Amino acid sequence: MAKMKAAVFVEPGRIVLEDKPRPSPGPGEALLRVTTTTICGTDVHILKGEYPVAKGLTVGHEPVGVVEALGAGVTGFEEGQRVIAGAITPCGQCSSCFEGHHSQCGGVPMGGWQLGNSVDGAQAEYVIIPNAAANLSPVPEGLSDEQVLMCPDIMTTGFSGAESGKVKIGDTVAVFAQGPIGLCATAGAKLMGATRVIGVDTVPARLEISKQMGADEVIDFQHSDPVDEILRITDGRGVDVAIEALGLQETFERSLRVLKPGGTLSSLGVYSEDLQVPLDAFAAGLGDRCIATTLCPGGRERMRRMMAVVASGRVSLEPLVTHRFRLDEIEDAYELFANQRDGVLKVAITP
Amino acid sequence: MAKMKAAVFVEPGRIVLEDKPRPSPGPGEALLRVTTTTICGTDVHILKGEYPVAKGLTVGHEPVGVVEALGAGVTGFEEGQRVIAGAITPCGQCSSCFEGHHSQCGGVPMGGWQLGNSVDGAQAEYVIIPNAAANLSPVPEGLSDEQVLMCPDIMTTGFSGAESGKVKIGDTVAVFAQGPIGLCATAGAKLMGATRVIGVDTVPARLEISKQMGADEVIDFQHSDPVDEILRITDGRGVDVAIEALGLQETFERSLRVLKPGGTLSSLGVYSEDLQVPLDAFAAGLGDRCIATTLCPGGRERMRRMMAVVASGRVSLEPLVTHRFRLDEIEDAYELFANQRDGVLKVAITP
Amino acid sequence: MAKMKAAVFVEPGRIVLEDKPRPSPGPGEALLRVTTTTICGTDVHILKGEYPVAKGLTVGHEPVGVVEALGAGVTGFEEGQRVIAGAITPCGQCSSCFEGHHSQCGGVPMGGWQLGNSVDGAQAEYVIIPNAAANLSPVPEGLSDEQVLMCPDIMTTGFSGAESGKVKIGDTVAVFAQGPIGLCATAGAKLMGATRVIGVDTVPARLEISKQMGADEVIDFQHSDPVDEILRITDGRGVDVAIEALGLQETFERSLRVLKPGGTLSSLGVYSEDLQVPLDAFAAGLGDRCIATTLCPGGRERMRRMMAVVASGRVSLEPLVTHRFRLDEIEDAYELFANQRDGVLKVAITP
Amino acid sequence: MAKMKAAVFVEPGRIVLEDKPRPSPGPGEALLRVTTTTICGTDVHILKGEYPVAKGLTVGHEPVGVVEALGAGVTGFEEGQRVIAGAITPCGQCSSCFEGHHSQCGGVPMGGWQLGNSVDGAQAEYVIIPNAAANLSPVPEGLSDEQVLMCPDIMTTGFSGAESGKVKIGDTVAVFAQGPIGLCATAGAKLMGATRVIGVDTVPARLEISKQMGADEVIDFQHSDPVDEILRITDGRGVDVAIEALGLQETFERSLRVLKPGGTLSSLGVYSEDLQVPLDAFAAGLGDRCIATTLCPGGRERMRRMMAVVASGRVSLEPLVTHRFRLDEIEDAYELFANQRDGVLKVAITP
Repeated sequence: MAKMKAAVFVEPGRIVLEDKPRPSPGPGEALLRVTTTTICGTDVHILKGEYPVAKGLTVGHEPVGVVEALGAGVTGFEEGQRVIAGAITPCGQCSSCFEGHHSQCGGVPMGGWQLGNSVDGAQAEYVIIPNAAANLSPVPEGLSDEQVLMCPDIMTTGFSGAESGKVKIGDTVAVFAQGPIGLCATAGAKLMGATRVIGVDTVPARLEISKQMGADEVIDFQHSDPVDEILRITDGRGVDVAIEALGLQETFERSLRVLKPGGTLSSLGVYSEDLQVPLDAFAAGLGDRCIATTLCPGGRERMRRMMAVVASGRVSLEPLVTHRFRLDEIEDAYELFANQRDGVLKVAITP
Repeated sequence: MAKMKAAVFVEPGRIVLEDKPRPSPGPGEALLRVTTTTICGTDVHILKGEYPVAKGLTVGHEPVGVVEALGAGVTGFEEGQRVIAGAITPCGQCSSCFEGHHSQCGGVPMGGWQLGNSVDGAQAEYVIIPNAAANLSPVPEGLSDEQVLMCPDIMTTGFSGAESGKVKIGDTVAVFAQGPIGLCATAGAKLMGATRVIGVDTVPARLEISKQMGADEVIDFQHSDPVDEILRITDGRGVDVAIEALGLQETFERSLRVLKPGGTLSSLGVYSEDLQVPLDAFAAGLGDRCIATTLCPGGRERMRRMMAVVASGRVSLEPLVTHRFRLDEIEDAYELFANQRDGVLKVAITP
Repeated sequence: MAKMKAAVFVEPGRIVLEDKPRPSPGPGEALLRVTTTTICGTDVHILKGEYPVAKGLTVGHEPVGVVEALGAGVTGFEEGQRVIAGAITPCGQCSSCFEGHHSQCGGVPMGGWQLGNSVDGAQAEYVIIPNAAANLSPVPEGLSDEQVLMCPDIMTTGFSGAESGKVKIGDTVAVFAQGPIGLCATAGAKLMGATRVIGVDTVPARLEISKQMGADEVIDFQHSDPVDEILRITDGRGVDVAIEALGLQETFERSLRVLKPGGTLSSLGVYSEDLQVPLDAFAAGLGDRCIATTLCPGGRERMRRMMAVVASGRVSLEPLVTHRFRLDEIEDAYELFANQRDGVLKVAITP
Repeated sequence: MAKMKAAVFVEPGRIVLEDKPRPSPGPGEALLRVTTTTICGTDVHILKGEYPVAKGLTVGHEPVGVVEALGAGVTGFEEGQRVIAGAITPCGQCSSCFEGHHSQCGGVPMGGWQLGNSVDGAQAEYVIIPNAAANLSPVPEGLSDEQVLMCPDIMTTGFSGAESGKVKIGDTVAVFAQGPIGLCATAGAKLMGATRVIGVDTVPARLEISKQMGADEVIDFQHSDPVDEILRITDGRGVDVAIEALGLQETFERSLRVLKPGGTLSSLGVYSEDLQVPLDAFAAGLGDRCIATTLCPGGRERMRRMMAVVASGRVSLEPLVTHRFRLDEIEDAYELFANQRDGVLKVAITP
């Protein structure tokens, strides 16, 4: 049986590169030869044992690759075709999918997230894509692996922050945290017609990139309180949409405090503790506000649209790829990324 | 100068009937002679000093009456006409109103709530309605005062719980608490096409009325945990929409726990403490859920629609009026209502 | 090879019952033993040669049946289970499906309509359901075949007329034509909170059923012009939503003429000629109106919801089944139905 | 009584500059001293007698000016303040306004269009703005008259074409006709996240400007059939949204023919003849398509947002101002504009 290299969760603190049998696609599935992948903040949670997965599972959920083999019944694709699949691989056929909640496939919270969670993932030489017909999306000619590497997760998640916030032409939008997802939220808000996007972070280098991604103004949380600052520059009006892209109480709460009555708090953060909703910030429940949470939209059409944005040149996410590793160096990549050394934003991993 | 009787907030613990000058309508305003009004839970918060208003303010925000005089520039109405006005009296002309957030008129949280809050209210012989053109709504022929008495607040608020929850045909909806607003939320969910409405309360008499208002099933919170019960009867699927109609941590939290991934928690409660959002109930922010808060929609068109529902016979709220008082007995009415004696749901007050 | 009886399109004017091989389900498919089916107006268009299908095709698209066999990869169902499938059987996996346009599956107009159109249909002893995981929906215990017989097409289509019209609480809705689909549109408008539904038809018996289905008022098009009448009873205001449920110029045009500025014309009709949009009725394109067309929503979740409505007792469509035939009498059934004899609304066909 | 110059409709074919009394603002109104205005295609229809207005009416509906005087009850503005008002001046207080159909104010088709239609307009030294609180919008510091001159009509109308089309990230959008409104629709589609905007026109110079406004591709209707061309470049898929910005049968019909199933035809054109909807282009009413018409959104918040777009530098409409005239030369301006001489797009008129 053919072997392949794969990054495997062994125990909290240890993700190691191991040999595994190369899998074969079952009915409805596809086997991709991975050409580029990356590491996500969620993978770091897995590494640290904060998010539990089965021991022996291959991690990773952001595949760029080439169709190696198609399972029975998969039509419309061909071997050798360059494709990506989203981090979320919904079936398209259950009640949740029919209602448009593809990320909650099967009616289970986060049910659409399979790769590197409930089935073997993409940090490997090969990966099986479930429900291939619903999830494979051909890479347009002329786009490199790195150009589309952010599409499966970071870009679609960040953009969804703006979409779930229902950003409109002329909106003022605050984006709390300018890590990779927050940067994509900034770009997404701009892409939907916001005319004043305010990027908030504590790292000056990220605030610089924030401006490149479309922020009209940036606030360094180290030097001033973003609530005071945002209320000041909006003449007390607050923002139409606040996007939380970190997952902490302090950013969640500030998102609420800068939000105008009638506005939407669009939450992308992965929280790790109970949240507090202060009574005054919540207007005692009478502010006609909405708190929307969104998990990384996936599926082939979504991926097609993300790549269309890249192809159009309207948003370029290549600046986010700050470091490159070979798959056999992935343990080093985790070490760098988990500790956020050397100004890392995202790494590219090439098997 | 003509005098009138009015229920006035004197100090925490004291709302008393006093003589006040009868006001005259300024430009754009109308003077109503109140024929029936009622007491709201919010008025009890004012009485107890939990919600601050100016000393000397006339309280009350649910007027049914007759046009006594029209201010300069108010056209389309005539003296002697029977009308109601909503508890929320938006201007229709500011940015918030233009964006459809009428309850947040002026861009201020709850800014649309003027009567008995920022200006003299309806528990009086006469009341001034601001922005009369936007807020007076003629009572259709054949409807009694008591038939439309719930329209200005309870009914529009309760219905908005279903509307903000975006109830669809075939939905399962849980409504937490079956006080007057929860009962209207139950009726509203049914009116929008829910096929399984689950009413939750601790008072058997309210659960009985809940069934009359359309609940398909009721759960007595005294005898079983509604979370277990709702998950059991929905085969673990949860509800499409959960409506919180009380304003307590325990109902808010349970609303979240019975909500399917992708569902909406529609919150109507007036909270009096910070809320906790438990990490697991919130799916760590990854459940594609929405928490929407709504404050009592007002304005003449809204009132017209509420009265159209009453006139159609599809919903009857007369069962909610359990007690009747003359205006000069209003202190007794407060005593009864504030202490929830004698199975009171709502009182009718007639000057 | 086992045989079965099937109603087959032979040539314009002839649909005949023939023997055909009983099919076997391929991967992802299911074989149903049909227990009850019906004839649709579209089938009559096929019979007359007005809508072209391949010679030899089995017609019919409204199956109630029992799972006889499941193809490879179909899980979650079992042989012997009572199920229905919608007239539209989308894949759930293409771009159109991911965007919620399931009826336009594959990006082709009407692409989701396969049964009795592009593949063999349901007027037979057995029928293959494509994409079974997306399309089989279990019949709740206690519901008879006839109770759910309208779900696959008539009911879902009629309700969608109200849904695409975005009927709101307190709306006035006119439904043009009270055939089976129009009657379901009437019921759907009521189910979504309309308080004044106006049914229009030329057949007194249908107007009677219209009232049973929820119409508050009916207009006999033979005796008065519905435009004059509707404008009169709405004080010139017009209707919030007009539903066209016939497919003729005269009903389409009148729908537009009774529609208020800002309203929605929700069109369900299958037209057979070019439409004219009169300049004045269209307000020269400046009336902020929307004309929405909708094709029969399908898929398992939709069917589940339709059956939930039936199970709730909120809408009963059994009155629509006026005649019953065995499958071997289907040619008689076509004769009756195509000529609209004997007050027929819908027929039940039992193999 | 003080006099002023005003462009007055005298009879078909004649709009002349006349002396008129300078008006005074009534309650709720404001008097503007007009500093810049422009001529709209609609004004040309008035000139030609194709759209009837009262003889003696001052025409024009696109005012940039300075507050000269405020009527009783108008607060929040001050004399000398630079403001604009939209072409549509809704009251904000009627049922239509409360439901968000401000352009259909009063429930009358186009009821929100008052200036230069039902009341004296803006091609004058002074103009009365009705419902000033709802309609005056301060010009942000640093913006010139010409920078905001397109906001009251052309820009808000063009953008609404994209908004009513519900343009999403990654959409392909075709805009039929690249006159001033079509150019703004092109910019609007881009602003909302379309990644492929296709501008169609017959005038090469307009196609050039179309590219400046954001079109990714342009099609010269003189040299190729846009239907063939668009279906070719979209691989037969069609466009997600088609915007009609001319008002002719041939553009309307082609908009429909390039529209994907499930797509939206957003119509901005002012039609002057009955429209034909070809059966095949309409998919016999079964294509899940929507035809939305939109009239120039107005009101102070809308104007604020339009000027926010200008201030952000994201869209510049100054290239549309091709010619400049003094008010006393307005008859020449009409002559040029009505005959579309000299490559005119829009003219600036300064009293």
